[in-house]
Amino acid sequence: MKDQKISIAVIRRLPRYYRYLNILIEEGTDRISSAELSHRMNVTASQIRQDLNHFGGFGQQGYGYNVKYLHSEIGKVLGLDKGHSMAIIGIGNFGKALARNKDFASNDFYVKSMFDSDPAVIGREISGITVQDAAHLVTSLKEDPVDIAVLTVPKDVAAALADKVIEAGVKAIWNFAHCELEVPDNIVVENVYLVDSLMRLSYNDSHRPHK
Amino acid sequence: MKDQKISIAVIRRLPRYYRYLNILIEEGTDRISSAELSHRMNVTASQIRQDLNHFGGFGQQGYGYNVKYLHSEIGKVLGLDKGHSMAIIGIGNFGKALARNKDFASNDFYVKSMFDSDPAVIGREISGITVQDAAHLVTSLKEDPVDIAVLTVPKDVAAALADKVIEAGVKAIWNFAHCELEVPDNIVVENVYLVDSLMRLSYNDSHRPHK
Repeated sequence: MKDQKISIAVIRRLPRYYRYLNILIEEGTDRISSAELSHRMNVTASQIRQDLNHFGGFGQQGYGYNVKYLHSEIGKVLGLDKGHSMAIIGIGNFGKALARNKDFASNDFYVKSMFDSDPAVIGREISGITVQDAAHLVTSLKEDPVDIAVLTVPKDVAAALADKVIEAGVKAIWNFAHCELEVPDNIVVENVYLVDSLMRLSYNDSHRPHK
Repeated sequence: MKDQKISIAVIRRLPRYYRYLNILIEEGTDRISSAELSHRMNVTASQIRQDLNHFGGFGQQGYGYNVKYLHSEIGKVLGLDKGHSMAIIGIGNFGKALARNKDFASNDFYVKSMFDSDPAVIGREISGITVQDAAHLVTSLKEDPVDIAVLTVPKDVAAALADKVIEAGVKAIWNFAHCELEVPDNIVVENVYLVDSLMRLSYNDSHRPHK
């Protein structure tokens, strides 16, 4: 399977397929037709066939998709076949919520370290991990590297902290601050802009088909 | 301005324009050229011209965009010209983080009520609002309606709670549970799937251009 051929639009849909295939595995379903998957996912069967053809994960016509095979192939494309360690920077309510989220661990994203600058928070233990002083962020991350830095900090300090984690060698940043980070080409950033999400909800709310 | 003509792709970009225009207003900038905005936003000037032509928010050629006018027009399309009240259902770390988020209030999304089912949380005051018993969710929301219900609850109870807020008359749901909600056509749902976001980061991390 050559994933170079997969378009960005398909990539954006993959986590959703992965989620549904996971539910099917939990239900004990071995095979599923594109028609049945289409019904459950509320996507056209032709869209599903087009998307999943990239993975060749189907047997003879009429036999449907091999659920476990597809799940595993999509997982590989998403890079989920290897675990990801994370450092959470900013241990407010949001950072704590992420640290305690069980959906991340079940997908092999695990929290390895936590940092904050508040003396009242430094030294506290959360989910078995002691919060370290953000003043030592660079040296700590150099000694004990992580795959992903999670920034749950106010936007006025986000850029400076992003520079520090990059200096420490981190190559992937999950940014929750409401600002855009300027990073070198070899660093990947995924932004979660909750305000943008609220604005899309507001847009759809004011343009709903049936009031 | 006829917003019916605006494509979904443009709509998805509007919150980002809104954010940048807001920064420009804060900086005291009255007008900006598409070239300058293009440079700041890292989007082509032609893309910006195409997108913003929907709003007619520019004067003569060479005079650039009127920042405040564009900001206000985009805000209207996004439905931000009227405030939105929200009920947060599920007052764990995540719900508390959302309740205390200042970026929401500055865009006129304000928390009106909070609900939880945990006796240790019911009756507590967070940001000046007393957490109510989720057992009375429907009657409370009927008496004191909100525009948006925010579901920050485990996925196994999300569907049941969505049904209840819809029964109470809520028309817009901001869902943080890692599941898809089945709702009637006249209800709008915006999902925040943090695991999907992590998976996109993982994908980009394993397919980065320069390792």
